[in-house]
Amino acid sequence: MSTEAELREQMATLTRIFAMRGLLGVHGHISGYAPDSGRIYMCRGLGSDKATTRPEDLFVFDLAGQVVEGEGRVPLEWPIHTAIHAARPDALAVAHLHSPWATLFAVAQRPYLPVLIAARWFAAGLQVYPEPHLITTPERGERVRELLGADQALLLRGHGVVVAANNLQELLYIAVTLEDNARAAVQAAALGTPDFLDEAAFAGVEPDTTMSIRARLVWDYFARLEARWDRQPPFGVGALG
Amino acid sequence: MSTEAELREQMATLTRIFAMRGLLGVHGHISGYAPDSGRIYMCRGLGSDKATTRPEDLFVFDLAGQVVEGEGRVPLEWPIHTAIHAARPDALAVAHLHSPWATLFAVAQRPYLPVLIAARWFAAGLQVYPEPHLITTPERGERVRELLGADQALLLRGHGVVVAANNLQELLYIAVTLEDNARAAVQAAALGTPDFLDEAAFAGVEPDTTMSIRARLVWDYFARLEARWDRQPPFGVGALG
Amino acid sequence: MSTEAELREQMATLTRIFAMRGLLGVHGHISGYAPDSGRIYMCRGLGSDKATTRPEDLFVFDLAGQVVEGEGRVPLEWPIHTAIHAARPDALAVAHLHSPWATLFAVAQRPYLPVLIAARWFAAGLQVYPEPHLITTPERGERVRELLGADQALLLRGHGVVVAANNLQELLYIAVTLEDNARAAVQAAALGTPDFLDEAAFAGVEPDTTMSIRARLVWDYFARLEARWDRQPPFGVGALG
Amino acid sequence: MSTEAELREQMATLTRIFAMRGLLGVHGHISGYAPDSGRIYMCRGLGSDKATTRPEDLFVFDLAGQVVEGEGRVPLEWPIHTAIHAARPDALAVAHLHSPWATLFAVAQRPYLPVLIAARWFAAGLQVYPEPHLITTPERGERVRELLGADQALLLRGHGVVVAANNLQELLYIAVTLEDNARAAVQAAALGTPDFLDEAAFAGVEPDTTMSIRARLVWDYFARLEARWDRQPPFGVGALG
Repeated sequence: MSTEAELREQMATLTRIFAMRGLLGVHGHISGYAPDSGRIYMCRGLGSDKATTRPEDLFVFDLAGQVVEGEGRVPLEWPIHTAIHAARPDALAVAHLHSPWATLFAVAQRPYLPVLIAARWFAAGLQVYPEPHLITTPERGERVRELLGADQALLLRGHGVVVAANNLQELLYIAVTLEDNARAAVQAAALGTPDFLDEAAFAGVEPDTTMSIRARLVWDYFARLEARWDRQPPFGVGALG
Repeated sequence: MSTEAELREQMATLTRIFAMRGLLGVHGHISGYAPDSGRIYMCRGLGSDKATTRPEDLFVFDLAGQVVEGEGRVPLEWPIHTAIHAARPDALAVAHLHSPWATLFAVAQRPYLPVLIAARWFAAGLQVYPEPHLITTPERGERVRELLGADQALLLRGHGVVVAANNLQELLYIAVTLEDNARAAVQAAALGTPDFLDEAAFAGVEPDTTMSIRARLVWDYFARLEARWDRQPPFGVGALG
Repeated sequence: MSTEAELREQMATLTRIFAMRGLLGVHGHISGYAPDSGRIYMCRGLGSDKATTRPEDLFVFDLAGQVVEGEGRVPLEWPIHTAIHAARPDALAVAHLHSPWATLFAVAQRPYLPVLIAARWFAAGLQVYPEPHLITTPERGERVRELLGADQALLLRGHGVVVAANNLQELLYIAVTLEDNARAAVQAAALGTPDFLDEAAFAGVEPDTTMSIRARLVWDYFARLEARWDRQPPFGVGALG
Repeated sequence: MSTEAELREQMATLTRIFAMRGLLGVHGHISGYAPDSGRIYMCRGLGSDKATTRPEDLFVFDLAGQVVEGEGRVPLEWPIHTAIHAARPDALAVAHLHSPWATLFAVAQRPYLPVLIAARWFAAGLQVYPEPHLITTPERGERVRELLGADQALLLRGHGVVVAANNLQELLYIAVTLEDNARAAVQAAALGTPDFLDEAAFAGVEPDTTMSIRARLVWDYFARLEARWDRQPPFGVGALG
């Protein structure tokens, strides 16, 4: 695992990449957990400018939800992060996103399924958190964790998504896959019911690469793009979700 | 309430933010009312470049619709603003927008309802002004006010929207919520009838935050983005509405 | 009417504005006719960079389709322009556009009608040129002119649109209205059949402003935006049409 | 045919143009074959920054799939290119794209057909590679080649497209036509079944220009736009496909 300085650097980079892709809007936030120290690093929440996040801008929480470092307004929905980090050693990275396309499946009355082979990770479908409120208490956080189970993503009804991954590189990969596949599924639906790729469609098909290799290459790609981003406000997507 | 200088500054900032988000196009305009002085500050109308609005560019009207300060062509639809300010002490801020997505519900034969929990303010639905003309007379302005009632938004058939709020910060918040929710509802409709969140869906659900806190944070967020905006022409949205 | 220098200046400005709005792509072209001199000014065609057009870049044609000034490859579909200018003294400005949204009505099997009151000019519907070929001969140009009749726009099947207007300012206004209304109609169709505003819907409704006033203000608006345009390639729209 | 230096220059330019248009994402790649030397020039694959590709960044393969020049990770799906170049002397240029709109027809259960006359090249429809995996072996490459046959494009189920052309200029033209037509077909479908232009629709219609002239002019157009591109990350399209 990375040092604290490396983890802070990666957290800031990923926050800016998500901002560049329009996945955070004004509300989203992400976290990275360091199991050795028990510290959860979390970016700032509502109203903060994610596109300019630096390593020193992060909050540090403990697993009980206490702020250990950082001043000011913490993200209202911090219980999403603490509940998952406390229970899933395989989920050191968590995001709450207002991804414009993926959120449509938390609005539509139709299951989220892959239409792209890159979204194979979701071939068993996704659960939906059913209550139309924010995740503002440990109890609600716990319910999110239960519904997420061992999955990598959860839909929040009329609200957004939660993504959980082994590390920050894989978090980026899964979040982008989730969003790309949602866009393709919605746009293809104009042509009729898409060819959904459920588990049966992938039966007997070996994955062509490992997640960890792909995730590292995709991270490098977006990090390079983010480095030259002119930080103009995203246009043509929702802001509040 | 703010001083005249503060109100002018906020009016100019909000005009530029709405321009950045593509909500004004060539036709929209906004106003802020100072009840102590009876002065209505209004941005310029058709043909003016909203993206560069400064505090000194505003018109000042009185409640009777007379121009007290400012030269040149006033917005043709000023009666929207005077009618609402004169009658609703809770609506010190008013916008007439040609929001690309929200306007679709003034075109579609289907009610506007929340699909996102952030749009809960609209759970009772919105009224539609039925006549296919502009709001160019006090009589039409009065009819707009009647249909708006105590609501925060009104659809104008084949035309655009009117938004009314307690102050300019909340005006921004409501307008962006209205538009985000419209986008999500239209795009999700490709997947079938969306899960509309009407009043029954929110029964027993406490709001998680207050409007005033959210509105302030969202204002800060957009003001920061607007400050670094390169003022490039919006692309990919309608211009005239 | 304007002098030759003024007409060339306006032609170059409008070509750049249409490029900024993504309405020309690689194929479109526009013309302005000076009846006193019998000269038709036309921008360059396929492959030229419309976004940087200057007054001296134009071709000059006569009504018979002969090139009077200018070197290089003329727009293949010049007969659109000569046929209309020769026959309609009220159409001193003509555009052949590959407007991304309006062209969809030359693809869909559904009539083009207003859904926005600003598109009232099209309340009687538009004709469609039925042959799937380019307008490369005087005979085809003549057929375009016949189908256009006294209208301000014509759809070309699977291809694009033709717009005819009294002058270049009105050409901009009509072209942008045509495109905005098309976008709204297509996007609203996701919600069911839109509330089309045919002639019956406008019965007894007086227009609120004159075309000439609106067209001048809209021209000023876009000319100001074009002056600060950074000339980045349009993204997210078709290029070839 | 061009010299090696010219071919490398064209390859780099086209890679950057495709990046500018959002057709490559993180996964796509293109190749150009020099039959005299038996060398296949290929751009870099997953994770590389296509927007900054230079002539010296390319791999060189032989027809057997051996890397002759270039270090680092080769595109995983190189067998697409070697299989086609080895078998089709008329396909000196090949692209594997994750075109956002065209890929929808590899997701939808509806045939790809022209709706725009510029897409006439596809009037007989396109085949679909049916297996939901990447093209990572010579056997799979051979199956791609068989399904492609003498066509200029092939859809890969839930994945992307393959385009084959006589040279790099025509590759650009065909790829852009494929994508533009896909966008128009999907968006028009919101209005009902589009007016598909199959072979019967073009019966007796002579093409108006030759492919080679059009392809050269379109290349010049995009090369000029690419030269002034500010290389900002594409926004609003998928990244992974």
